[in-house]
Amino acid sequence: MSFGTIHGVGLGSGDPDLMTMRAHRLLTEARHVAFFRKAGRTGQARKIIEGLMRDDVVEYPMEYPVTTEIALTDPEYNRRMSGFYAECAAHLLKLAKSSEDVVVLSEGDPFFYGSFMHIYERVRDHVPVQVVPAVTGMSAAWIATGEPITWGDDTLTVLMATLSERELTMRIKSTDALVVMKIGRNIDKVRAALKAAGKYDDAWLVEYASMPQQTVQKLSATQDRAAPYFSIIIVHGQGRRP
Amino acid sequence: MSFGTIHGVGLGSGDPDLMTMRAHRLLTEARHVAFFRKAGRTGQARKIIEGLMRDDVVEYPMEYPVTTEIALTDPEYNRRMSGFYAECAAHLLKLAKSSEDVVVLSEGDPFFYGSFMHIYERVRDHVPVQVVPAVTGMSAAWIATGEPITWGDDTLTVLMATLSERELTMRIKSTDALVVMKIGRNIDKVRAALKAAGKYDDAWLVEYASMPQQTVQKLSATQDRAAPYFSIIIVHGQGRRP
Repeated sequence: MSFGTIHGVGLGSGDPDLMTMRAHRLLTEARHVAFFRKAGRTGQARKIIEGLMRDDVVEYPMEYPVTTEIALTDPEYNRRMSGFYAECAAHLLKLAKSSEDVVVLSEGDPFFYGSFMHIYERVRDHVPVQVVPAVTGMSAAWIATGEPITWGDDTLTVLMATLSERELTMRIKSTDALVVMKIGRNIDKVRAALKAAGKYDDAWLVEYASMPQQTVQKLSATQDRAAPYFSIIIVHGQGRRP
Repeated sequence: MSFGTIHGVGLGSGDPDLMTMRAHRLLTEARHVAFFRKAGRTGQARKIIEGLMRDDVVEYPMEYPVTTEIALTDPEYNRRMSGFYAECAAHLLKLAKSSEDVVVLSEGDPFFYGSFMHIYERVRDHVPVQVVPAVTGMSAAWIATGEPITWGDDTLTVLMATLSERELTMRIKSTDALVVMKIGRNIDKVRAALKAAGKYDDAWLVEYASMPQQTVQKLSATQDRAAPYFSIIIVHGQGRRP
């Protein structure tokens, strides 16, 4: 009996029409489909694929035991997430070892800050694993602004809003083009860093890029507004162009 | 008579199976398809789409008047490229103004260092333009290495190998994860910068990511080898993971 394959499939930025041909084929043909979500929610990945799966699909929702209730720096966060990923990986390995192929969905690109990476590290040495790249949320976000992100020799820096204000400021100051992700409750820190770096007025806030509820605004026009998790802040490069 | 639309369509990293559903539909239904190439070559974009277009498609190859024969800093380079983009834009505008839709292809993502951006700037105020994001070459490259590019709070820096060795070194030293593009004849400069930044032994060279001739090697194993234009150097982030 040969092993099945675990496919780490990037869904892309959120619009099902922006899935790759390969992702779409794997998803629509899959008997087993696994995806992450916050407990008690439908989950973004599950929403994207609504109506695309086989009638006899077996879904495996993997529900995060914590998201933002425990600080990332708390050892308890690490302990619980580690146990969670181990449990998911064990289930997926069991399926693959019984010759079943499984599609594990990832929002955005699976190897770019994706939860799938934690599964990957735990299954890669045991069964065949294939990973399918995808359109990132940041690509959809800069397309949504209607302005190219990088020109000529521009340097692009991608920052997580979870960094300290001091580090954000330093890195924002020294780059040409900028993408900031994992905004959510960190938005005021990012605002302060952008101001300190002299780039606040050039920044855009894109919420839910390529999804039906997409919004695109200058960050300065959003003032004291909170931002959802699927938010990306963009500052465009201004490099060489003929 | 209403105007046609100019579609800036990202083809993705090179494997036709990694095109988005939308790009595939636009391309296979298009009557007019434009793409860039070096004079006298088939061109990478044209190779990717071989066999996908309508029988009665009208192709419009846009042939760069110069690529690396003139230095980027020479005003003559700018003058000739500017004239070239103006001429292409005029042709595409004429089509759109006669109610024809046109698909303009872009390798990778159209707004991420793409030649389409130069067309976009010249047509956007005159006719409807739609831009379709895509899988970037760098996504295909990090997937090809079999290792995730960014974890936790990792900062990702994307650098053009055309920068000075001093600037490359400084930026390589200060980032977690690294992507270097536009390698080609700049590879020795990038090697030197990686060594100076203490990251040479962690670097990977990916040539032709996701294309049939793809190669993946530690950069240190490639020694004095030249690298093709479609090469990407990767250093993976090592951030937090449970």
